[in-house]
Order: sequence, then structure tokens, then C-alpha cells
Amino acid sequence: MNANPILVEALRGSALESAHRGAVAIVDADGHSVFALGDTARAVFPRSAVKLLQALPLVASGAAEALKLSDAELAIACASHNGEPAHVATARGMLEKAGLDADALECGTHWPGLDGATRELAARGEAAGPLHNNCSGKHAGFLCLACAMHGREGLRAFARGYVEPGHAVMGEVTAALQAATGVDLAQAPVGTDGCSIPTYAIPLAKLALAFARVATGQGLSPAHARAATRLRQAIARAPFMVAGTGRFDTRVMEALGERVCCKVGAEGVYCAALPDRGWGVAIKMDDGNNARAAEVVMAAVIEAALRLDAGPAALLRSLSDLTLRNWNGRVVGCLRATPALRDALAALGSPR
Amino acid sequence: MNANPILVEALRGSALESAHRGAVAIVDADGHSVFALGDTARAVFPRSAVKLLQALPLVASGAAEALKLSDAELAIACASHNGEPAHVATARGMLEKAGLDADALECGTHWPGLDGATRELAARGEAAGPLHNNCSGKHAGFLCLACAMHGREGLRAFARGYVEPGHAVMGEVTAALQAATGVDLAQAPVGTDGCSIPTYAIPLAKLALAFARVATGQGLSPAHARAATRLRQAIARAPFMVAGTGRFDTRVMEALGERVCCKVGAEGVYCAALPDRGWGVAIKMDDGNNARAAEVVMAAVIEAALRLDAGPAALLRSLSDLTLRNWNGRVVGCLRATPALRDALAALGSPR
Repeated sequence: MNANPILVEALRGSALESAHRGAVAIVDADGHSVFALGDTARAVFPRSAVKLLQALPLVASGAAEALKLSDAELAIACASHNGEPAHVATARGMLEKAGLDADALECGTHWPGLDGATRELAARGEAAGPLHNNCSGKHAGFLCLACAMHGREGLRAFARGYVEPGHAVMGEVTAALQAATGVDLAQAPVGTDGCSIPTYAIPLAKLALAFARVATGQGLSPAHARAATRLRQAIARAPFMVAGTGRFDTRVMEALGERVCCKVGAEGVYCAALPDRGWGVAIKMDDGNNARAAEVVMAAVIEAALRLDAGPAALLRSLSDLTLRNWNGRVVGCLRATPALRDALAALGSPR
Repeated sequence: MNANPILVEALRGSALESAHRGAVAIVDADGHSVFALGDTARAVFPRSAVKLLQALPLVASGAAEALKLSDAELAIACASHNGEPAHVATARGMLEKAGLDADALECGTHWPGLDGATRELAARGEAAGPLHNNCSGKHAGFLCLACAMHGREGLRAFARGYVEPGHAVMGEVTAALQAATGVDLAQAPVGTDGCSIPTYAIPLAKLALAFARVATGQGLSPAHARAATRLRQAIARAPFMVAGTGRFDTRVMEALGERVCCKVGAEGVYCAALPDRGWGVAIKMDDGNNARAAEVVMAAVIEAALRLDAGPAALLRSLSDLTLRNWNGRVVGCLRATPALRDALAALGSPR
């Protein structure tokens, strides 16, 4: 791996303590590069950053309409959620609409991502289950898709193994990912994701292209274009569902609504659709750091790309230039987008 | 910051997903470089990796003897512990020996580092306090030093503000750090650590030198040399106290005893004394990652530097070349020292 530029730096006092390297691609729906920093041709595993693309068949198939999925339910189908009570209830409700329960989930179990939710669960003497898995909404969406493909009769048996690359459900999901990115996934390096579905390594610029298509509808089939619009609307109306308390995606989309549709993925990947400008964004931090690095870069990109009112502008600046405090609340340093990254992003020009 | 070499790589399936860059310095007690990879002249904040150096005055002052501190108590004075019940009890016991309680601690509060300990605390309806802070043992050690310097009469008032650079207690601690590293800390960049004491940026090779001195006693004052030996012995006898359940430092020192005295610090720093070879080791990962990166490098260094029996050899290999599994227990990839790092470390030659 070539050394990508430093995009984020952590200072303690006034001295550099740590730094994060990475690459950023911004592409329009024609596939033209709007902005590229670092190696944007390298194939990266997008992980959870492409959940919206993986949810396109849920809407395009008619499953969402047939099961009367709500905005919250469509949003959580695209989520890496905190495992808070509202997330668990929403994912459970989707399964019930398909006549299933949590036993049908094949995502595995982990404690809630939000520490407070874990402590509340423990204080009630309960243990975590698959509904607390950050991917439970995505998997509930897969099972709703399975319901539309097969019907309720024998659904549990039909759905079993839905995480496998060869299953009919995953075939639909992978086809949508391939159509949106324009990459032949049969030829792509493949790995297994944290929740057991396949993840395909895709050039960063192609991930950005897919989100430019999500932003504009251009380059997608009519059914996928309508599905993308519906999912973006649902996320904008229920941004809590896509992440949760204190999370970047939730806070940014609560502030900006449909102007940004962003999604974090594991290992320092971030994707976003920016409908105002018709652009897609894809970020990969070399070291795989999300909270410390990819989020800071995404905040700086949004600041440079969009015209923001004072409130959202202040929020985004607090996410791209963070004051670091210690356990006593003392200011000990900062975490920020590098001046070099900001200078480069200035080339995006004035937002419309 | 120059791009240091990639020392650790994370693979998903057979494809590279993420990578960690960093620098490694191994130095002997004469200050000669035994091994250097990356920029070992750059000053880095050592954070908690130098807690043993900061505990030298606790022993050298006679405080440890006067208060009859046990091996466990001396070990936790050098610890970044998990906040497990035994850690909390040990730190509390030290404070009691000095006639103080947890109110005297100025480290701040956070929930235990071990998730299971947090859940147990929450299940009992309790909240975290300063004794759960991973630094509580180090701070209890500072307060025991304060007791030796001032006596019990009016100790609470004397000790107040002991975390400040200008306090007499911190003066002793800083002087020990300066003597061990040979660096004029009055001229060094200074920051505030997570627990509110000062942290000084020190060239990586000088940190390695300090630990070569800890390994050999050479270059330290007689009192500090005796203190270093006593602390290394205490840690080897009570390695649980220095970290806790499942932690690298505890597992490695349970297996290797006094042959390794290693300590993690925040932001991807790791230091170790290797008495078998008379060497000190200092590692800094550029991106500040500990669990994913600095630990892997330290394991590879120990493997290359020491002659290991089959059991410890297998343990170390499991820490330098890790199988990654997902929430369903499926193998999804690996995290490992790069072949280039292993090749370079081969130059250390056959262990004695």
C-alpha cells in the first residue's frame, strides 16, 4: 500500500501525537472525478458503508410496500445502529411483519454499541441477543426481501442461510451492489463481513460513483432510482434509526436532512450521497479508524461541499476540529482535519 | 510526519484491508542502537508506557518499604488496569495505608476498561468511581509517595493538586523520568495526560534507552536501579495487577515472568525492558492504535529477541499473527506483523 496523505492529526498540547492517512474520492454521476486525494483506484472493502445499496432490492422488489415498512424500518435496514431500545423494537417489528422472529437472524450477537445501552441491559439482568447486533435492521430487511421473494409459507426454511453468497436473497443484494458500482463483483476480492454476509473489494472511486448515482438517480435502473430516493427520504426522516445517540450519521442528518445521506462502514470507510451537488463521496482511512479519522474527513468534505447555515456549520466544524478533553474534563488537545486536506478541499469551489 | 514503514497489516479473506505504520527502537544500556525501524528520533508522548519510571520514586524514597507495599500494590502503581474488583480493592488498600481514601484521587472517573467488569458493576446497580480509572493504582502510588515526603499529618492538604507539574510530588516523578531517559524535560514539548498529570514528548530511542537502564540498572542511580529491580520483580509476581483479564501485558508476563517487563501506553506506544539481552524497546504507531497495532509489533519483537519455550512461543505467535473471527465465530481474516517487519527483526540474531 502506498502512503496516502495525512488527512487527520491528533495534537496533545501543541505537539503532533498521532496521524491518520487515507484517500478521498468525490465523483459525479457521469463518473467524472470531482476530487481525488490519495489512491482512489485501490479496491477497498466497503463493509457497512454500502448498506443503502444493499437495501435497494428491499424497495425495488415491492417488499417494502407490501409489508408497509415505515420510514424508521427502511432507515434501520440501512443502519449500523447502537442497539438502543428503539432500534431493537424497530428491527423486531420488521421481522414480525414478515411472520418471523429474532431466531431467523443470522448476524450473530454482540452487546449494544452504545455503552449506556449495554449498562441498562445489564442493570435489568438481561443479556444481548441478535437484535442488539448493529446489523440487525439490515438483516431484518433481507428477511423482508425473502418474504417478498418466497411468500410466508415455508419462509423460515427458504430464508435459512440467507447470508451465504449463493443464496437467492444475497444474489439480489449483490446484483444491486454490482449495478450501482458498475464493478464485476464475480472478479472482485471477496471477504466475509462481521455479520457473515459477503463483502467485495471495490475501487474507492467506484464506491463514490455508486453514491453519485444514489444522489441523482442517474445511471440506476428506474426501479433502483426510485428505491434510492425512497431510502434517502426514509433515512432523512428517521436519522436516529441509522445510527443512534451521539453518533455522527444521526447528528449530521438530523441537522441536514436529505442534503446529506452518509454512512459509516467498519475499517475507516465512509460513503455519502450529496444530492445538492449530484456527487458521491467515498473515504477510506489506511489504518481502518472510523470514529477518530473517517468521520473527521467526512465532516470536512461536507463543510467544503455544501452551503451551510450557522447551526449546521458549527456542528460540522465541531466534528472536523474536535477539542479533546480528559477524564477530568480538562482540554488536552485536538483532533482535526489537516490544513492540507482543507486546502485541497477548497478546490471544490463555492457550493451552489 | 514522515511515512514510517507498515509494521502491521489486517487482511480480510486474502486481501489487504488496513495497515498500521510505526517506528521501533531497541537500544542497549550504553545507548547504542541495536535495532531501528522508522523515525526513532521523533519525540513521542509516552503516556502510560512509562509508569514504571514514574513509580521509581515510590520505591527509591523508602515509601514502599515504610508502608509495606506488597508486590500487587507495587505492580498496580505501574498499571493501566481493567478496573476489575481486584484492581479496585488493591488501589483502595494502598490509599488506606497512607490514611487516605478514593476522594484523594485526582485521576478522574471512567467505567472499567473490561466490558464484563462494567456490566457486573451496572448489574449491581453501582456506578464507576475514580478507583475504576485505569490509572488509580499509579495515583495511589503518587499519594503513598506524598505520605513519605510529608507524613500523615495534613497529608490530604499537602497532596492536593499532586497532578500539577509544579507540585513537589510531581517534581519527584518528573525528575525520575528525566534521569532515566537522559532528556531535559524542561525543554520538551509537554501535554496533559488522560489522568491529568503532565506527559513529555521524548525521542523514541531515548524511551528505549530508559528501559535498557531498567533492564540492567546501568546508568541509573543506585537507588533508582534498586527500585527498578524491585518494580520488575513485583510486576513479574503480580502481572494481573498491571493490566487484567485477557490483556497483553498480563498474558505475556504470566508466561515469561521477569524475562519481559512490558507496558502499553495510550496512542500506540509500547515500552519494554528485556533483561535477558539488556535491551530496552520502544514502539510508536503513527495512528495511535494500541490493541490492533502496537501489541502486534511488541509480540513480534519479543519473539525475535528471546529464546522461547513452546508454550510462550505459541502465545506470542497468537499475539503477532491473530486470526480474526466475526460475531458468528467465522474466520474472516487475520491481523499480523508484516513479513518485512519479521525480516528486519531477524537481524537481532540468535537469542542467548
